[in-house]
Amino acid sequence: MNMKSENIIFDKVAIIGIGLIGSSIAKGIQKNKIARKVYGYAKTASTRAKARELGYMDKIFDTLVEAVNDADLIILCTPVGSNADIMRNIHGHLKKGSIITDVGSVKKAVIDQIHKYVPDGVSFIPGHPIAGTEFSGPESGFAELFYKKCCLLTPYTKTDKAHLDKIISFWEELGMIVDTISPETHDLILATISHLPHLVAYNLVDTASKLENKKDHEFTKYAAGGFLDYTRVASSDPIMWRDIFLNNKEAMIEILDSFIDGLADLKDSIKTDNGNKLERLFKETRNKRNKILDSIKKLESE
Amino acid sequence: MNMKSENIIFDKVAIIGIGLIGSSIAKGIQKNKIARKVYGYAKTASTRAKARELGYMDKIFDTLVEAVNDADLIILCTPVGSNADIMRNIHGHLKKGSIITDVGSVKKAVIDQIHKYVPDGVSFIPGHPIAGTEFSGPESGFAELFYKKCCLLTPYTKTDKAHLDKIISFWEELGMIVDTISPETHDLILATISHLPHLVAYNLVDTASKLENKKDHEFTKYAAGGFLDYTRVASSDPIMWRDIFLNNKEAMIEILDSFIDGLADLKDSIKTDNGNKLERLFKETRNKRNKILDSIKKLESE
Repeated sequence: MNMKSENIIFDKVAIIGIGLIGSSIAKGIQKNKIARKVYGYAKTASTRAKARELGYMDKIFDTLVEAVNDADLIILCTPVGSNADIMRNIHGHLKKGSIITDVGSVKKAVIDQIHKYVPDGVSFIPGHPIAGTEFSGPESGFAELFYKKCCLLTPYTKTDKAHLDKIISFWEELGMIVDTISPETHDLILATISHLPHLVAYNLVDTASKLENKKDHEFTKYAAGGFLDYTRVASSDPIMWRDIFLNNKEAMIEILDSFIDGLADLKDSIKTDNGNKLERLFKETRNKRNKILDSIKKLESE
Repeated sequence: MNMKSENIIFDKVAIIGIGLIGSSIAKGIQKNKIARKVYGYAKTASTRAKARELGYMDKIFDTLVEAVNDADLIILCTPVGSNADIMRNIHGHLKKGSIITDVGSVKKAVIDQIHKYVPDGVSFIPGHPIAGTEFSGPESGFAELFYKKCCLLTPYTKTDKAHLDKIISFWEELGMIVDTISPETHDLILATISHLPHLVAYNLVDTASKLENKKDHEFTKYAAGGFLDYTRVASSDPIMWRDIFLNNKEAMIEILDSFIDGLADLKDSIKTDNGNKLERLFKETRNKRNKILDSIKKLESE
């Protein structure tokens, strides 16, 4: 990469895991000239080969240790279940003064997995860029994925202020709106606005599929935009989502219980012909959704 | 309207209810030159005034009877709960040889409401163009709404073959793929691919809203595309949806029970750390969703 120096925040960045997020970060760094060199590592040889072919990283290494040992910033972009394994492998090979961050959709469990392996002189700043598509793999990334989206950082102990500022600048240069928050709050919020809707999408497709089999009638072909919209996320990476649910157990159970209670209540209103209650709820929900859209617009314009 | 005569299927069409569907049909008829005249009626004076101002109908009447008494095709585009009332008002004023159809998202209940009011010499052919957006009102319609979408007709007794063919041609001229099916099957299919997902969307917004109140933290502003996609339909017309749920009670309860069972099963897998089961289900669901997309593409290319 031949770049102007003004935006450069890190000399060398190592991206571990080259899927949608990893490849989007690499492209974003390149486009916005945020680092001098971008290194990569992926566990699977075919992913490394594909990423090399696509050429959006300066170098892709065959081992974790090679990828990280000269890096100033290491970004874990792997499914959250693999963090502990990765840290066991790399913790003895990290440069003094380097920063580790991650992009996992859960934060409490990730901190538990990573914290104990972080050596003295290295900062770990957990993060979560809330951005995604239903596509995965090294060919799915694009620099604009993060633009005007929120990134939540969850610093968990006495975090080096200068390092935190660098990470905030890093995501901001990628176009994100950055906020800091506690890991617990993060996990409950994400369970609500992301993990639950994903689980619901999987379950909508599965419910339809079961009925098709029962009735021996392939009727989902009649589905209009609505069904396809809500189930879009059911096409997301299965391993990543398995790990998210298993690592956000407590919050998922809390919010699932609340969601199932709500459904039972709605079922009861339908059963007892309580049209007033349904109408009131639908009006409130419509207002609420419009308010959410307004809040997002306001956030984006700030 | 000044139109060529080749596509004309009906002389005069009366559209009862001028919301998203009614206004889209009017515009589609105009664009595709399917009728010589389009008449309209809406219960609310401000809707009539707005539709007159927008000018996509030849005439908008202040009473139901005036709108229908000279029409060859009457299309009920009102919330399904109002059909019986409308039929009580108009059944003595229908022209011999005319056809009534509707666009309701439920068919068994609609047939029960309308059938008994249909006079001799008039055909009633229940229908459901499966197309929509989250917008409502006389200004929300557009001619392309129906393009490459499915329309299910549910003829319920000895239907006049010539009349059925005319209705099939009518929707085809608007761009739809038309299929006939039994009312019972229609209602269960729609409960699965449309009504349940809508109820789920309302409940997702409500669950998030309750948690925001409980935690006194406005966190839905962090929502990414996913949450906004699945909850898009929660902005739909509350009255229309109240009526749909109340009029598709049996199928809704059947499919809600199946959906809640699925969620309880998922919750159990999360609780017991059953990663294999989650991963298997997510992979199956991803494959299934891709198959649905393929079926839809195939249907559209036929």
